Amino acid sequence: MTRYMATIAYDGTNFAGFQTQNNQRTVQEEIEKVLTKLNSYQTVILHGSGRTDSGVHAHAQRIHFDLQGQRDEERLRFALDTQTPSDIAFHEVIQVEEDFHVRFNKHEKIYEYFLENSKVRSPFYRMYRAHFRYKLDEDLMRQALADLVGTHDFTGFTASGATVEDKVRTITQAELVTLDDENYKFIFRGNGFLYKQVRNMMGTVIKIGNGRMPVSQIKKILESKNRDLAGPTAAPEGLYLKEVIYLD
Amino acid sequence: MTRYMATIAYDGTNFAGFQTQNNQRTVQEEIEKVLTKLNSYQTVILHGSGRTDSGVHAHAQRIHFDLQGQRDEERLRFALDTQTPSDIAFHEVIQVEEDFHVRFNKHEKIYEYFLENSKVRSPFYRMYRAHFRYKLDEDLMRQALADLVGTHDFTGFTASGATVEDKVRTITQAELVTLDDENYKFIFRGNGFLYKQVRNMMGTVIKIGNGRMPVSQIKKILESKNRDLAGPTAAPEGLYLKEVIYLD
Repeated sequence: MTRYMATIAYDGTNFAGFQTQNNQRTVQEEIEKVLTKLNSYQTVILHGSGRTDSGVHAHAQRIHFDLQGQRDEERLRFALDTQTPSDIAFHEVIQVEEDFHVRFNKHEKIYEYFLENSKVRSPFYRMYRAHFRYKLDEDLMRQALADLVGTHDFTGFTASGATVEDKVRTITQAELVTLDDENYKFIFRGNGFLYKQVRNMMGTVIKIGNGRMPVSQIKKILESKNRDLAGPTAAPEGLYLKEVIYLD
Repeated sequence: MTRYMATIAYDGTNFAGFQTQNNQRTVQEEIEKVLTKLNSYQTVILHGSGRTDSGVHAHAQRIHFDLQGQRDEERLRFALDTQTPSDIAFHEVIQVEEDFHVRFNKHEKIYEYFLENSKVRSPFYRMYRAHFRYKLDEDLMRQALADLVGTHDFTGFTASGATVEDKVRTITQAELVTLDDENYKFIFRGNGFLYKQVRNMMGTVIKIGNGRMPVSQIKKILESKNRDLAGPTAAPEGLYLKEVIYLD
């Protein structure tokens, strides 16, 4: 068996998330169907660097999988790109060591969150950016983001069903970029993110920007680890897995 | 009756075009349903500045319609924006003179055509930009565009079913903008465009850019008025009605 890592993009709109679920259309399942075909119909199971939820997008998700024999990387990429549905794209396929693992090898992730802050929601962004029609204060949001940077226990920002034990993560970047009068991009970089963490942080940052929570709420949520103090989970369509960076 | 003009945007993906057609979902029909409701269920027929085909988008299509009584413009805009489906947006509604007509009042139109020229098609652009995977020469395309500018009989660039008699139109701008390594925007401005004219011009410009037609083909098509000499009709998803500018 030969192990390959692929860099894929997908439009999350019509998927029930990345990971296989019974009777629902998922990214994993659509790709595994094609991989299995390319593997002489011997079942192939792929691994992703992490899950994304229904409606969440990826510019550069990483996956790995094992195939019988050795393939030309570009031919394999082309076969996967053209045989998977048009809402999945294969940007790169490379052969990797047998013990490489997209999730367990040390990495950082970058997520981006796009928010349209306008009176009228653009029909072109309805599946690709979150929308908030009320006033947002950029300074307040920047202050809130600054308080997220660092090594913290993010229990207060994860979903109640989260199963991992250790909820300490390090965020090295939490930044707001003003794209134009009506559009913001938020960038989060860190060594790992808990289930729904980015969307829960964003829901809180939006409430702070709208003046309905004080900036100090971020520190309070981190210290108390109390989910009830955080804002609502922000809409999935604003979220993009932008990059997975392997560190060695 | 009071006449209103509205500026609307729509994502053309899930419409069988702008204009009402039997048993198909159209922009006109979706808006007329709401207008009729807002008009105490007295049927309202709207007029558009022009049609757009299935899959073609609009950033600022103009429509007009008559309603009983007089309305607050912003309230009317809000009602139309929120009661129409999310792939239609109402950016502005203003009261106009009773004899104003979105199609017959003198105007210029701007169309934009987005083309992704890349090995891998982005899943995010599959409904919003045309895609061409082979090499394109920017200089050849610019030369071809320059030959389209001016007052010409555009018979050779319209669809064979076109019903208007006079096919002479003036194009004042035909420009290529390089967005990044893999994306182009084409801008066309003129006093009117024939049925499928922009997409037929684009199909020809792409063939010229790819070296499969000489630059001189544009002049040949204009002079001969022979549709068979033009390139194929370019894909609808790249095309946007960008602006309608009334001249008096």
